[in-house]
Amino acid sequence: MLPRIAIDAMGGDFGPRTILDGALAAARHFDLALRLVGPEALIRRELADRSADTAAVDIRILDAPDVVAMGESPAQALRRKPQASIRVAAEAVARGEADALVSAGHTGATVLAAHAAFGMLPGVDRPALAVLIPTRGERPSVLLDAGANVECRPHHLVQFAALGASYSRVVLGVPRPKVGLLSIGEEESKGTDLIRDAHRMLKATTLNFIGNVEGRDVYAGQADVIVCDGFTGNVALKISEGLVETVEALLGEQLASTFSGRVGYLLSRRAFRRFSRRVDYSEYGGAPLLGVAGVCLVGHGRSSAKAIRNAVVSAARSVNERFLERVGQDIAAAAVPQS
Amino acid sequence: MLPRIAIDAMGGDFGPRTILDGALAAARHFDLALRLVGPEALIRRELADRSADTAAVDIRILDAPDVVAMGESPAQALRRKPQASIRVAAEAVARGEADALVSAGHTGATVLAAHAAFGMLPGVDRPALAVLIPTRGERPSVLLDAGANVECRPHHLVQFAALGASYSRVVLGVPRPKVGLLSIGEEESKGTDLIRDAHRMLKATTLNFIGNVEGRDVYAGQADVIVCDGFTGNVALKISEGLVETVEALLGEQLASTFSGRVGYLLSRRAFRRFSRRVDYSEYGGAPLLGVAGVCLVGHGRSSAKAIRNAVVSAARSVNERFLERVGQDIAAAAVPQS
Repeated sequence: MLPRIAIDAMGGDFGPRTILDGALAAARHFDLALRLVGPEALIRRELADRSADTAAVDIRILDAPDVVAMGESPAQALRRKPQASIRVAAEAVARGEADALVSAGHTGATVLAAHAAFGMLPGVDRPALAVLIPTRGERPSVLLDAGANVECRPHHLVQFAALGASYSRVVLGVPRPKVGLLSIGEEESKGTDLIRDAHRMLKATTLNFIGNVEGRDVYAGQADVIVCDGFTGNVALKISEGLVETVEALLGEQLASTFSGRVGYLLSRRAFRRFSRRVDYSEYGGAPLLGVAGVCLVGHGRSSAKAIRNAVVSAARSVNERFLERVGQDIAAAAVPQS
Repeated sequence: MLPRIAIDAMGGDFGPRTILDGALAAARHFDLALRLVGPEALIRRELADRSADTAAVDIRILDAPDVVAMGESPAQALRRKPQASIRVAAEAVARGEADALVSAGHTGATVLAAHAAFGMLPGVDRPALAVLIPTRGERPSVLLDAGANVECRPHHLVQFAALGASYSRVVLGVPRPKVGLLSIGEEESKGTDLIRDAHRMLKATTLNFIGNVEGRDVYAGQADVIVCDGFTGNVALKISEGLVETVEALLGEQLASTFSGRVGYLLSRRAFRRFSRRVDYSEYGGAPLLGVAGVCLVGHGRSSAKAIRNAVVSAARSVNERFLERVGQDIAAAAVPQS
């Protein structure tokens, strides 16, 4: 049976058309079935003039008239709106009507809806958003939590470490991923109480813990897995996005001031754009929400159709490769502390 | 009288020769007197073959046989080593034998030594390291705390906001600096408890508080002052340094793969290096330690002679421009909450 991907058609800053473009592109690119979740009439209208794209694809629409808006408190919105697209999509997966969830909508609402509908893997207390980041090393590193949990306790960070290591092993094929704890100095004594306690607990696990890594080492690829709380992770990733934009803008300005500089700028711009895309996690196909008992990929709000396509394909691959089962086995084997 | 700058000759990863090169360059560039602090015999030896540079300069050596090493716990080291160069330098300023302190050594030890020797400005509980960061806007922004305090309470962040606003006003000439609080969403409800409490308290001050700023906006120049705890600030700055290095390395690789790309790379590399230097805060002349009752500039451990020169000149300018007095007046006027 083809993997059936439930997609929140209302998520994302660019509206349902971009989401559907991405979903249909995924179905052209990979053997999968689409479960499009949102107001039925609206989705039908969008699909009407794409009969060429939809003819050979297993598509069903799951009607969901409501949507969680970006400014809303996710907990309240999900409670008040049982027909919100993200909630309907997550519940369809939980009932077995689809195999995986993809959303580029309100991140907090996606995390809560997936958590509520799927429950957690045994041994994990909190879900974590994992992001692949480009490095100067051989392969990307996994950074988590990227924003699912603003306040964490030490054992949460240890669980994130086990989840990240499993992700690195299953998805990137790293046999024994090196796990680093993001801090402000390499010494065990450096950092907040949270970091010092997590450091001590990580040393006692069977994970390949290499100690603290500093901000400077994150993009050097020293660790395969970089563990942090969701506040720090979110700030770190968003600072990176903004810095890349600023580097490009200032570089352009500086180069444009001379003729040979302008030539250099034109030639280097394409390479730069290629790099920017590597930093933009949406291009990697969305950030997996790890720790929940279901496959869930979260796209950036600014996801393009291509980013949505990549996320949907990633979700289908995860289903085919029994991702969830393998992560569950890894977590059970790691026997990390729980609250 | 010339401003007398006490310089920890033993601080910095490249040893005393680099520090002295920078200090002497500062004295050539600006009217100031040098108070070089470290093992007297060693400094005399270093100065011996530079009579051309030293002839016209008011130089004194303050003997300090010990040094706080990078791996040491700063509190313990300062207690056990009353003759450590950073402690002797700070105490010389406190006794009025010098007007300002410059160190590129152990940051934690510099913060503690300055705090102990100078005490705090009235109305401020904790010192904060302020860093100027380049932006796409008209001018650099001030980010603080960059690492002096790993754990903060809400009123500390409010005090940092007042210090940063004063710095922006006095040093950058911004009449009414916009103050932003670094968080993971613009809404008041976003972030940790620390951030939410600080947000509420900042709204009640007379500062020009513009609300939360996200990581993505930091380099956009939306706020003149960006406030965060020292853990987050340190991670954010070090991630930025590492990312710029990685962008340069990966860009070079991508460009080098084609001939026209190689040309583009050679032409753009100079502009890139120029940008990298703007991100490296040492080039701006060191990070001021704000809130202590004395002028103190902290250089990056990897400070070049030029970075040291800039820090020493900044320190002398601060003395001439009565920086401390003006910050003290601003803090008194802001009447921020204290513990």
